[in-house]
Amino acid sequence: MNDFLTLRTLKPSAIQELVDVAKELKANPINDVLKGKVIGLLFMNPSLRTLASFQAGIGQMGGTSVVIQPGTGTWTLETRDGVIMDGTEVEHIREAIPVLASYCDILGIRSFANQTNLAEDLADGLMHKFADLSPKPLINMESASDHPCQALADWLTLDELNVPTNGNFVLSWAWHPKPLPYAVPRAALSMAALRGMNITIHCPETHKLPEELYQEAQKLGANSLRYSHNPTEALENAQVLYCKSWVSPQNYGNPDAEAESRKDLREWCVREDWFKTADHDAKFMHCLPVRRNVKVADEILDGPRSVVIQQAENRLHAQKAILQSLIK
Amino acid sequence: MNDFLTLRTLKPSAIQELVDVAKELKANPINDVLKGKVIGLLFMNPSLRTLASFQAGIGQMGGTSVVIQPGTGTWTLETRDGVIMDGTEVEHIREAIPVLASYCDILGIRSFANQTNLAEDLADGLMHKFADLSPKPLINMESASDHPCQALADWLTLDELNVPTNGNFVLSWAWHPKPLPYAVPRAALSMAALRGMNITIHCPETHKLPEELYQEAQKLGANSLRYSHNPTEALENAQVLYCKSWVSPQNYGNPDAEAESRKDLREWCVREDWFKTADHDAKFMHCLPVRRNVKVADEILDGPRSVVIQQAENRLHAQKAILQSLIK
Amino acid sequence: MNDFLTLRTLKPSAIQELVDVAKELKANPINDVLKGKVIGLLFMNPSLRTLASFQAGIGQMGGTSVVIQPGTGTWTLETRDGVIMDGTEVEHIREAIPVLASYCDILGIRSFANQTNLAEDLADGLMHKFADLSPKPLINMESASDHPCQALADWLTLDELNVPTNGNFVLSWAWHPKPLPYAVPRAALSMAALRGMNITIHCPETHKLPEELYQEAQKLGANSLRYSHNPTEALENAQVLYCKSWVSPQNYGNPDAEAESRKDLREWCVREDWFKTADHDAKFMHCLPVRRNVKVADEILDGPRSVVIQQAENRLHAQKAILQSLIK
Repeated sequence: MNDFLTLRTLKPSAIQELVDVAKELKANPINDVLKGKVIGLLFMNPSLRTLASFQAGIGQMGGTSVVIQPGTGTWTLETRDGVIMDGTEVEHIREAIPVLASYCDILGIRSFANQTNLAEDLADGLMHKFADLSPKPLINMESASDHPCQALADWLTLDELNVPTNGNFVLSWAWHPKPLPYAVPRAALSMAALRGMNITIHCPETHKLPEELYQEAQKLGANSLRYSHNPTEALENAQVLYCKSWVSPQNYGNPDAEAESRKDLREWCVREDWFKTADHDAKFMHCLPVRRNVKVADEILDGPRSVVIQQAENRLHAQKAILQSLIK
Repeated sequence: MNDFLTLRTLKPSAIQELVDVAKELKANPINDVLKGKVIGLLFMNPSLRTLASFQAGIGQMGGTSVVIQPGTGTWTLETRDGVIMDGTEVEHIREAIPVLASYCDILGIRSFANQTNLAEDLADGLMHKFADLSPKPLINMESASDHPCQALADWLTLDELNVPTNGNFVLSWAWHPKPLPYAVPRAALSMAALRGMNITIHCPETHKLPEELYQEAQKLGANSLRYSHNPTEALENAQVLYCKSWVSPQNYGNPDAEAESRKDLREWCVREDWFKTADHDAKFMHCLPVRRNVKVADEILDGPRSVVIQQAENRLHAQKAILQSLIK
Repeated sequence: MNDFLTLRTLKPSAIQELVDVAKELKANPINDVLKGKVIGLLFMNPSLRTLASFQAGIGQMGGTSVVIQPGTGTWTLETRDGVIMDGTEVEHIREAIPVLASYCDILGIRSFANQTNLAEDLADGLMHKFADLSPKPLINMESASDHPCQALADWLTLDELNVPTNGNFVLSWAWHPKPLPYAVPRAALSMAALRGMNITIHCPETHKLPEELYQEAQKLGANSLRYSHNPTEALENAQVLYCKSWVSPQNYGNPDAEAESRKDLREWCVREDWFKTADHDAKFMHCLPVRRNVKVADEILDGPRSVVIQQAENRLHAQKAILQSLIK
């Protein structure tokens, strides 16, 4: 593995191996694998879990992390090629990335979707550009349309919960004040597909995922895949409800149209009565941060179904496994 | 010790033990006590000394620090329970704290007073809520009404200055452009009381401390305790003047009333002529940052009375003693 | 060496020794020279390379870095003496610097020119004030009129490129939307002079350097020194073009006059046709960040002449040599 940009190019057996390394690191967290090594973490977008879990994990492995946050102590970066840079950006990624890479053994980059052009964001072109510019291994710390560190942590969490690889996984839309991109839903959907699960996408009729992502999940190995627009049907025998909000593909790049299309959807807030037909101990998953009583009711987050803290903790262990596999 | 939230719940002998450990660490600063360990530092409010001294001390002990600053690279956090989170805060402390704790061996949190409700701020409810939410040991890096790291450093400084435990300690108000909460005055007052000192609170008639804090200092063991509104009287035989500004309890949560009440108090700026009746080598203490020529004249800060740099350095050693006592 | 504030007070042989240590550290980057040591990095101005390269280098040497960025999680600092601090600055450097120094073994500070008074900025008074206030060794991470870390890295780069010590070095002005101070041109000019090179300063007639800097370069040992206002003449047999923009001394502190004086100078953007008379493999140097197609064309940065990434990487190795020579 030269870079860690997505789970989608890995075989399920290779992912399972990474997950198994993560389990070992969870049991024995301290080692010297990164002694004298430097991991650069470039955040084009804000972060709490990703920042803290990477820095903690790097420290537990004896390494040093270097955090760069353009706009916070560092100028913002130009990403477009061929531009005349007489505006606010004073440095181009064509310099910034190889320079940072020259100081580091591994580079992690977070860079969210522009949300202007759907096809571009689904191609995750900027993250691949970063990988091309970096002579050192690159970790995708969340990109325009992927979040593989989260997906790997989620796989680990499902294993720990003894959810079978062909268990019943519901990816459910929820209301959110802003149109959100497809990074997490795509990562979760791909992960469940690669794991071989029975997948239901639960969302309003207006908020199906882009068709490409549905096709992709089928190709990646979903045991079954369907849409449902009704919680009673969607959650039947579900072992897991994975909650996320996303923009409707029809309204991609058009926040006003999206706001209009979701204005009557505030009841899409996960609550206990959604689980009537689910497995007795079905779990609630979410990648965090989550807006309480907007996407999910307190009763769920504070009750026994929620495994969101376990998911977040598993980011630490999953990422350490990634680092260990990338370091030379 | 499971948490370090205040000095007030510790016996003087236990505090003295911590101070003695700090002295040893000052003499021998480098060890491996925190090797492989991660200390999370969450700053809800800005910091210079606290940030730098914790990071330096953790490094000297072989550990890793992870700094999270909501609003600076990380979104701001919701602290209220039961709220519908459709505003600017995107994550609740009910998730953020246990998640951060899951990455760390010890957590430090700084969170200043809201300055709306006096009783709430004196109860230091939010810091106790943080402690309840964190399964890992918590260090109070300054809260609504306490600053125990500073108080421990100050005790060490008094020891180094050979100020007797029953010496004469003056806590003096000074003018400041803003109404400031009771964290430092309460911490300093409690510390001096626990140390068994003779305490004079020197302030304008309008700016006595909340009565609860006066009572508290008596219960904690002050050898004597009084108010004085006149520097000649207040500083008689004083070994230490500890300077701090605070809001009048009558004006708590009312900045306009406070501004009006202190508009004629700008002469409350510590200067050499205040020390006429004090011990010849009486010292000037302040927790920093300090506004020069507003709270204290250059002649004091640049003269032989000032021990503010020593106090600040002792934050490092005191905090290392706290970390060493909390780490498993 | 007690501080590292400039190359200008060092003998060429001492600089060459530092460069040779940097070469050794480039070959063997990991050691324990800074184990248990703390390096404080105070950024009064933004940074990418300096921050990342210092943190990376400190980590490779087993040490801990502490980063303080006033205005980003820390309040801004007052630098003027004798002022009544009732404005926005809440802490004076007379406290902040010795306090930070008390936590650290070495301190690095970045503090750009005010660009109000030319003589003051050329005297680099604030950086010397910092050195006076710090009882620990101080590293100039770029000041009002110097950037010795960059200069040392550039010397290393010239050595690696086999540019002879008496080779032909062109310091070339380029257009930039803002008036920039003399830190980098002075550092580059001094470095080339100390190295004993033949130096041509290529700039518009309106944009000569301050006469003091020209005299200084002669005294420091330039083999030859001249101005040229024409690329064909300036670059004749050049081995290196070092690009930088700077304000005209006549317009120092007067951005409007400067904007007027450079409004017709946008063609001062380095491009391939400037190199017609240069050595066949003449190199392009720039300290970064650089505005593409403003100061230099893509064709240069993306072509074989550019060594800007090598220069930036050499910051890491040069700074490690400085740290190693300053640590006790």
